[in-house]
Amino acid sequence: MADPSTCPPLIPSSIATAYQKITPYIHKTPVITSSSLDAIASSPNPAAFLSENPPTFEETAASVNRETTPRFRLHFKCENFQRIGAFKARGGFHAVTRLIDEMGVEEVRRRGVVTHSSGNHAQALALAASTFNIPSYIVMPKISTPSKIAGTKLYTSNVIFSGSTSQEREAVVADVIEEHGAILVPPYDHPDIILGQGTVGLELEEQIGNSKLDAVMTPLGGGGLLSGVATWFSDKETLVFGAEPSFQGGDDGRRGLLEGKRIEHVSTLTIADGLRTPVGFRNWEVLSDRRKLEGVFAVSEEQIKMAMRLVLERLKVVVEPSGCVPLAVVLFNQEFREMVAQKQIGMEKDGWDIGIVFSGGNTTVKAISKLFGEDEAEDDGKREAAKVAMDGGTKVEDVAG
Amino acid sequence: MADPSTCPPLIPSSIATAYQKITPYIHKTPVITSSSLDAIASSPNPAAFLSENPPTFEETAASVNRETTPRFRLHFKCENFQRIGAFKARGGFHAVTRLIDEMGVEEVRRRGVVTHSSGNHAQALALAASTFNIPSYIVMPKISTPSKIAGTKLYTSNVIFSGSTSQEREAVVADVIEEHGAILVPPYDHPDIILGQGTVGLELEEQIGNSKLDAVMTPLGGGGLLSGVATWFSDKETLVFGAEPSFQGGDDGRRGLLEGKRIEHVSTLTIADGLRTPVGFRNWEVLSDRRKLEGVFAVSEEQIKMAMRLVLERLKVVVEPSGCVPLAVVLFNQEFREMVAQKQIGMEKDGWDIGIVFSGGNTTVKAISKLFGEDEAEDDGKREAAKVAMDGGTKVEDVAG
Repeated sequence: MADPSTCPPLIPSSIATAYQKITPYIHKTPVITSSSLDAIASSPNPAAFLSENPPTFEETAASVNRETTPRFRLHFKCENFQRIGAFKARGGFHAVTRLIDEMGVEEVRRRGVVTHSSGNHAQALALAASTFNIPSYIVMPKISTPSKIAGTKLYTSNVIFSGSTSQEREAVVADVIEEHGAILVPPYDHPDIILGQGTVGLELEEQIGNSKLDAVMTPLGGGGLLSGVATWFSDKETLVFGAEPSFQGGDDGRRGLLEGKRIEHVSTLTIADGLRTPVGFRNWEVLSDRRKLEGVFAVSEEQIKMAMRLVLERLKVVVEPSGCVPLAVVLFNQEFREMVAQKQIGMEKDGWDIGIVFSGGNTTVKAISKLFGEDEAEDDGKREAAKVAMDGGTKVEDVAG
Repeated sequence: MADPSTCPPLIPSSIATAYQKITPYIHKTPVITSSSLDAIASSPNPAAFLSENPPTFEETAASVNRETTPRFRLHFKCENFQRIGAFKARGGFHAVTRLIDEMGVEEVRRRGVVTHSSGNHAQALALAASTFNIPSYIVMPKISTPSKIAGTKLYTSNVIFSGSTSQEREAVVADVIEEHGAILVPPYDHPDIILGQGTVGLELEEQIGNSKLDAVMTPLGGGGLLSGVATWFSDKETLVFGAEPSFQGGDDGRRGLLEGKRIEHVSTLTIADGLRTPVGFRNWEVLSDRRKLEGVFAVSEEQIKMAMRLVLERLKVVVEPSGCVPLAVVLFNQEFREMVAQKQIGMEKDGWDIGIVFSGGNTTVKAISKLFGEDEAEDDGKREAAKVAMDGGTKVEDVAG
């Protein structure tokens, strides 16, 4: 990877430069809205809309207490429609184009790029490299699911298998570097990756309109996306929040901020499988800066599932569990909701315009069936009552150019 | 309903007028594209991409026989993002605004509107009526699922239950008409409904660009959508096709065209539950005109499921089974594919631009789990191989204004 010491600084103008570089290769993803989801988020008890007998909006409107019930207009940034199905394409293309700028394309082609990942970063890097005819070496654990292997093989003939522990994977990466001189492109802990992912913030702001966004929330795993977005908004009024799964300590970012110290090891099997990693070193430097990040909130597995269900049934779009975590916070985290309600007291504007990043959509009908099949099978039709087509429909605000 | 004899004629200019009337009340739904779905549709055996070991595009490209393999650029018209989650909102608003024009809003408010339906039409009519403070009486079978009842109740306090047979339902409708003087708005067999649904064709053509569309395909149930779209394109070069489920004789439109006679009774429990009805009388008059409709093709339940899986996993959007039937035809109906391949021989342009109408998105995670949960549970991870994130992403071409 480009030597971090030669990278552009983590400031908004570097993200604007990154955006110019990657624009030819990525999708400008649309922003969608839904008046019924806005109404649910602005009601005292959003979970009631997922119960067997959902209330009407009239009923809930009557019970609003402005001191505890926040008001939202939700703007969903659809990176699930991004190339390879996730925002990772942005960082991948930025890292590769930066390498080409620094070393020249011939040198990068001669050496190739390498990473170890079984997730969206592997596919993003393989896609970006193949776009410039650069060889990519992707180290994946032998036990990776066939779909991920097949997905990666579409862009590279160099999928190399390793054991599952990080030591085993890193040893294979070291071999590849030794043999080919390949350049390591890490998944999140690098300035070029952070700046690439930060373009999500730039694009969203451009789509919603300057200074209209009161807040933005993204998922927090390794922190590439959140630190990039926090960097973009660091010189603006927009508040930036992170969202994590609480299951088995998956909320390492939130806990680290409380302790004033980055948590370096996490071991969770949360359904939000993109968020199982600890926050990276450089990412932490951004995220622990209170001027850049307003806070991190966590939600349970059940709350993530409820949010995912609303996304599928009402918005009619497919977002993987990791990507549904911010909406789960907005709807179900009482601490977050009361904090927002307090901030909204006396506000001129009626509620917040909040950007919510749907980070990716790489899931399967089988995974959806596993999540929702068993516990719902028994009550044939009843629980389904919550899915009411009261929807004002899904409105697409802005769109691929 | 407005007396059909006073309705505008079923010609394109009447659809343009209908569009002006309903534009304030409906969403202009986006059109999405996917380069990987185009590649799959243009390969010799699209089903191979859903197998355990999907081929690469290079492999399939090498085996293309231009005499039997058609080439497509697919343009998906997302009526799943329409208000109430389906195109039915268009016909509902057109029918109601036409009634207001004819009788004056006070008279319509005094009498109200009535229909019997447990599906998307009920919600569409209730929404349109409530928009103008017109009472709507919706007759639903007692055994309707709670979600559909709840969805309809959001717009009307007059949900009236009946028995399940059409005689029982019609008797209750007759009572409502007798008691309130309510005006019947049928779900598809009426010129105002046909003209309203035809605006899908107008809007799609406007979005893709004049004269660029080689063909359009919509689902065929009662025929409101297909006859409207066929009417819109009746003075243009664009070929119009219908798509039906073959299960238990659900392909009544296709069979009727073969026999030269409308089939009046159908009894099928196809998963494409919006397409279980026979083609309506007025709809048939349009659809049996070879100058307006090029043909109807049918697919199996398994083929509909395969198409739905591609839509969820690759396009990342939720479309109900009925709405996936046209894509299933394009991918899996050999008769259709070979016919298209023959037409494309010697064509100047490389393949067809085809509009595919995603008619609605009203399904649930539970229904998805039922469709995909059981038969996939056993092969943990293997069948999933077909879901490869090779996706070039979902591109949104045009968008709500």
